[in-house]
Amino acid sequence: MPVSLVILAAGQGTRMNSDLPKVLHLLAGSPLLHHAMQAGRSLGPERVVVVTGHGSEAVTRAALAFDEDALTVVQAEQKGTAHAVAQAAPLLADATGDVIVLYGDTPLVRPETLEAMQAARARHAVVVLGFHAADPGRYGRLVTDGDSLLKIVEYKDASEEERALTLCNSGVICADAKLMFSLVAEVGNANAAGEYYLTDLPELARKRGLSAGVVICPEDETLGVNTRTQLAEAERAFQTRARAEALENGVTLTAPETVFFGLDTVVGRDSIIGPCVIFGPGVTVESGAEIKGFCHLEGCHISRGATVGPFARLRPGAELAEDVHVGNFVEIKNAILDEGVKVGHLTYIGDADVGEFTNIGAGTVTCNYDGVMKHRTRIGKNAFIGSDTMLVAPVTVGDNALTASGSVITEDVPAEAIALARARQVNKPGLATRLREHLLKLKASRK
Amino acid sequence: MPVSLVILAAGQGTRMNSDLPKVLHLLAGSPLLHHAMQAGRSLGPERVVVVTGHGSEAVTRAALAFDEDALTVVQAEQKGTAHAVAQAAPLLADATGDVIVLYGDTPLVRPETLEAMQAARARHAVVVLGFHAADPGRYGRLVTDGDSLLKIVEYKDASEEERALTLCNSGVICADAKLMFSLVAEVGNANAAGEYYLTDLPELARKRGLSAGVVICPEDETLGVNTRTQLAEAERAFQTRARAEALENGVTLTAPETVFFGLDTVVGRDSIIGPCVIFGPGVTVESGAEIKGFCHLEGCHISRGATVGPFARLRPGAELAEDVHVGNFVEIKNAILDEGVKVGHLTYIGDADVGEFTNIGAGTVTCNYDGVMKHRTRIGKNAFIGSDTMLVAPVTVGDNALTASGSVITEDVPAEAIALARARQVNKPGLATRLREHLLKLKASRK
Amino acid sequence: MPVSLVILAAGQGTRMNSDLPKVLHLLAGSPLLHHAMQAGRSLGPERVVVVTGHGSEAVTRAALAFDEDALTVVQAEQKGTAHAVAQAAPLLADATGDVIVLYGDTPLVRPETLEAMQAARARHAVVVLGFHAADPGRYGRLVTDGDSLLKIVEYKDASEEERALTLCNSGVICADAKLMFSLVAEVGNANAAGEYYLTDLPELARKRGLSAGVVICPEDETLGVNTRTQLAEAERAFQTRARAEALENGVTLTAPETVFFGLDTVVGRDSIIGPCVIFGPGVTVESGAEIKGFCHLEGCHISRGATVGPFARLRPGAELAEDVHVGNFVEIKNAILDEGVKVGHLTYIGDADVGEFTNIGAGTVTCNYDGVMKHRTRIGKNAFIGSDTMLVAPVTVGDNALTASGSVITEDVPAEAIALARARQVNKPGLATRLREHLLKLKASRK
Repeated sequence: MPVSLVILAAGQGTRMNSDLPKVLHLLAGSPLLHHAMQAGRSLGPERVVVVTGHGSEAVTRAALAFDEDALTVVQAEQKGTAHAVAQAAPLLADATGDVIVLYGDTPLVRPETLEAMQAARARHAVVVLGFHAADPGRYGRLVTDGDSLLKIVEYKDASEEERALTLCNSGVICADAKLMFSLVAEVGNANAAGEYYLTDLPELARKRGLSAGVVICPEDETLGVNTRTQLAEAERAFQTRARAEALENGVTLTAPETVFFGLDTVVGRDSIIGPCVIFGPGVTVESGAEIKGFCHLEGCHISRGATVGPFARLRPGAELAEDVHVGNFVEIKNAILDEGVKVGHLTYIGDADVGEFTNIGAGTVTCNYDGVMKHRTRIGKNAFIGSDTMLVAPVTVGDNALTASGSVITEDVPAEAIALARARQVNKPGLATRLREHLLKLKASRK
Repeated sequence: MPVSLVILAAGQGTRMNSDLPKVLHLLAGSPLLHHAMQAGRSLGPERVVVVTGHGSEAVTRAALAFDEDALTVVQAEQKGTAHAVAQAAPLLADATGDVIVLYGDTPLVRPETLEAMQAARARHAVVVLGFHAADPGRYGRLVTDGDSLLKIVEYKDASEEERALTLCNSGVICADAKLMFSLVAEVGNANAAGEYYLTDLPELARKRGLSAGVVICPEDETLGVNTRTQLAEAERAFQTRARAEALENGVTLTAPETVFFGLDTVVGRDSIIGPCVIFGPGVTVESGAEIKGFCHLEGCHISRGATVGPFARLRPGAELAEDVHVGNFVEIKNAILDEGVKVGHLTYIGDADVGEFTNIGAGTVTCNYDGVMKHRTRIGKNAFIGSDTMLVAPVTVGDNALTASGSVITEDVPAEAIALARARQVNKPGLATRLREHLLKLKASRK
Repeated sequence: MPVSLVILAAGQGTRMNSDLPKVLHLLAGSPLLHHAMQAGRSLGPERVVVVTGHGSEAVTRAALAFDEDALTVVQAEQKGTAHAVAQAAPLLADATGDVIVLYGDTPLVRPETLEAMQAARARHAVVVLGFHAADPGRYGRLVTDGDSLLKIVEYKDASEEERALTLCNSGVICADAKLMFSLVAEVGNANAAGEYYLTDLPELARKRGLSAGVVICPEDETLGVNTRTQLAEAERAFQTRARAEALENGVTLTAPETVFFGLDTVVGRDSIIGPCVIFGPGVTVESGAEIKGFCHLEGCHISRGATVGPFARLRPGAELAEDVHVGNFVEIKNAILDEGVKVGHLTYIGDADVGEFTNIGAGTVTCNYDGVMKHRTRIGKNAFIGSDTMLVAPVTVGDNALTASGSVITEDVPAEAIALARARQVNKPGLATRLREHLLKLKASRK
């Protein structure tokens, strides 16, 4: 059955105490909104509609950054969840199949849960996602009969008996697209806030003789983010889950509680991740690679047998082929390192291609920026870049070539050649002692 | 009402298993003593007297480092808390208003608690700080009637009924200065240890027909440090509190449990602090700045819109204006970076001024030390410092000037000029291959 | 009484989901196998026999890396623990005294526990190590009478009454060598798996009229590693123990939960370890040294008064004498730094000797690798190595000598001399502005 998503992302998030729209706060290095979109992505949705409001432009940009085919619509006034969903109706007028409503501030719903909701649609016209709350507090309660949902009652309207229920409403809801929008159009606003709520949908459906059902997920999937403290709790929940999955998949995490995964980190079996490693978005680590402690990785690919760190930073576009070694105090950005390349120490490689088995000495810099533009450095295979070589891009160093340490390379170096750009050493006997005496006198005279 | 502080800091701390006097052990990067002084500072005290004993000289230096107006007095023999307070009497003979007695090894008392004690003085001549202990153990118990304090009983002198009380004595006490010293003078030492204890004060006051009262604070504020384990616990308690306050104030902490605040860290709203960030004393981060993971910051100021890290170290005197970018493997010390300056990679900037929008290339070093003295580097605005530039201070680079990468700059560079100090590149065809063959033969011959 | 060890290390560890043999997975930076060998080492064993199986070659190499005198034997088929021990019999045929059987996947047994087992041999012919399990589950139960062990019953063979026992079998067992192998030869395989189990030994001994006894240890010592999650738990247990011991010994750990000790880390009293410090194997820190946050240390020695970090990496063979300072973004490998040497920033010192009180400037590199061989750098005392000096090894810098910043030193520098290898600075007036205009035009023309 095809499915489309409506993601509600209009709220300001007053309790975040922030100028940033709530759904743009970062979880695991990515905006909350991306997490909701990622959960829905695995369903292969026909369309994705993001309903924006506060900070509409920034939220729209973020939605498109994650999925360039996403559609967005502005909910100019915030008049409740049903009102928000109604804004999406024109964009889904010809949608076939189901619609699932997700929330930009509820980042931890699992894809498997959404799949279960879709499956439950075989039995029910409307399916709501519920959870058993350890402390149900003021959540809306789900009144059920078996897996049939009789109604959703708001806490303030609930009887004593209903308040004793622990099965609560997550807000996530699934129905056939046409039914969804037809029911939404019927929702009234005869309540204290004068708003239109999706919680009316199951009862409205039942009035039409249709059945509503419940799918139950663990409470942690429904964690909503309203404060910075909740954001930190969501981060902890996300990381706890990601760490457990990595261990399960045959990854060694020396100290799981100090490893921070990104939204979409992939780590292969028999990889080793040391303590204190931070993954941003877009990182893939193949099987049998090793990431030592204190590494910071984003948007990069690390192949089988590669070793990284400690104290390494890989930035977007860093591609490490098999058996590459990136050592300490090394930064790699937008660069392709072929098989067996070694970059051991104190180096910046940016905007570069490095051929297989080339060795890059300590203190090397690809001078990729001339103050106005960025340029590319190309280094062949089996080359030896001496320590403290400055490669002033655009520049090419050929296969098997060598640069002498301390050289500033401004012109291409042919294959097999040695490039030198340095002054001859001169030793001035006794001068160090005379200089030191001079400086000490100078210092004394200044007191 | 004016107030003076007496801070007891004479103890050795045998159980710390250390040569360092107990109050000089570090909590949140600052000596325990500073924490007690900081708590009292918010009362705007007329005078601060630190009573020293073990390691008296070092403790005196530490007291003056925090507050150059602090007074210190040596308690030559440790004969109890009342005896310690008596040493401060001559220094407070003409003090007006109240005296509060604090402890150098009890770092977590909140300023708000001390203010509540002062307020309670409107109702009582002597005010004692108590707490309900989860496990009262051998603490002294407070026998009360409403908020009146009848007496403090030592555990070993307490009846069964008194031992059942959970309200315990923190030791912190407040009274009118003249009354405090007059009562202290009456304290006797007819006890097993032959020492003079402040715990006698409430009863002595009541004998004069004066009332004593209690202010109650949470137990964690009264945590005393006697062992390294308790020091680690105090650190955890301090950090837990500081992290919660930051979140409350609208700061994003990706992983709060990995961020370590200093005694006086200030972080503005809508700042983002990544995982694994360590703040030493004296750091201010304005609103909307970002500190990425793995940063180490002390004595520095980070302005609005600035981004720092990952892997950055800011040392005392680092001043980053708005929108400055300090990247990875960069150290800044005693340097002023004006608006929009960028220092992206592998650089040491020490003892320097850098004008607005100047770009500092990778591998740059301000050579500020000549082996005897330190010197300053001055760089104008909109300058471009090429990668691997050595700036041999004292030296000045003018506005809009450029240094070629790999240059050692020993003389001033005029505005608008390019400074070069490097040899011309020479390529020696085929030489790399011949060298490699030679080395391989040499290696083989050595086996 | 002399003792020999038999360490069972043949298992594959299917549940680890790994190509690596189970006992080679790392705990505290060392293979699990080394932990078992380390626990037994303190007994001064006469012989150590490691029984290998899966990944026999790699496990043998690891055993010899820890103890070059270890003996190994291959258990070609895995037919139970008694069968495994029987493989060791030929290697211990002439062993005197006791044999203790340990497990390569049970890394947390304390030396003190093994000593207690040996002591209990005065009273019993066979001594088994037991523990009270919080959740006994399917562990084998120890049926005892006082400290006498009547029998070990497998869970599946246990009566209801026996299942109610919480005293469980760790598998560790001690007996006189000749008795051990004689009993093992009697074990039968009449069980569901058709395997030979050591658990039969106590009953077989009692049948001979010999007594069996139990020594009880805390449950955490018996933690076995079968999954990556258990490996992470074992790491946590190891670190929790190591951190507590360090605090106990008078070490300050700012944030104990972020410090990762190695198998054999030694840290002296009154040392300070900041947050986020990782110790690999073979590190000794003397009293009164300071390791700041974000350090990564392996195989190195740090003497009294030395300060290291933040962001420092010490690799095997780094020897820091008293009062050495190693600062940020510095890597030291296979190098001896004499008293008072300072290496403050952004430096790589590898394969080097540095004399006392020498100062190494920022950006210095010992160019120790010529593409084929490694060479050594020797620097005398009181020398001053200017920033960005490349020391092309083999090379020697004499006492009190100085290298000018930015120099590439390819020849020896005599004592007292200044070595320079750099081009003279030239300032080209106005050229920076003309270059910038040119680049801007070029950029515009490319659009």
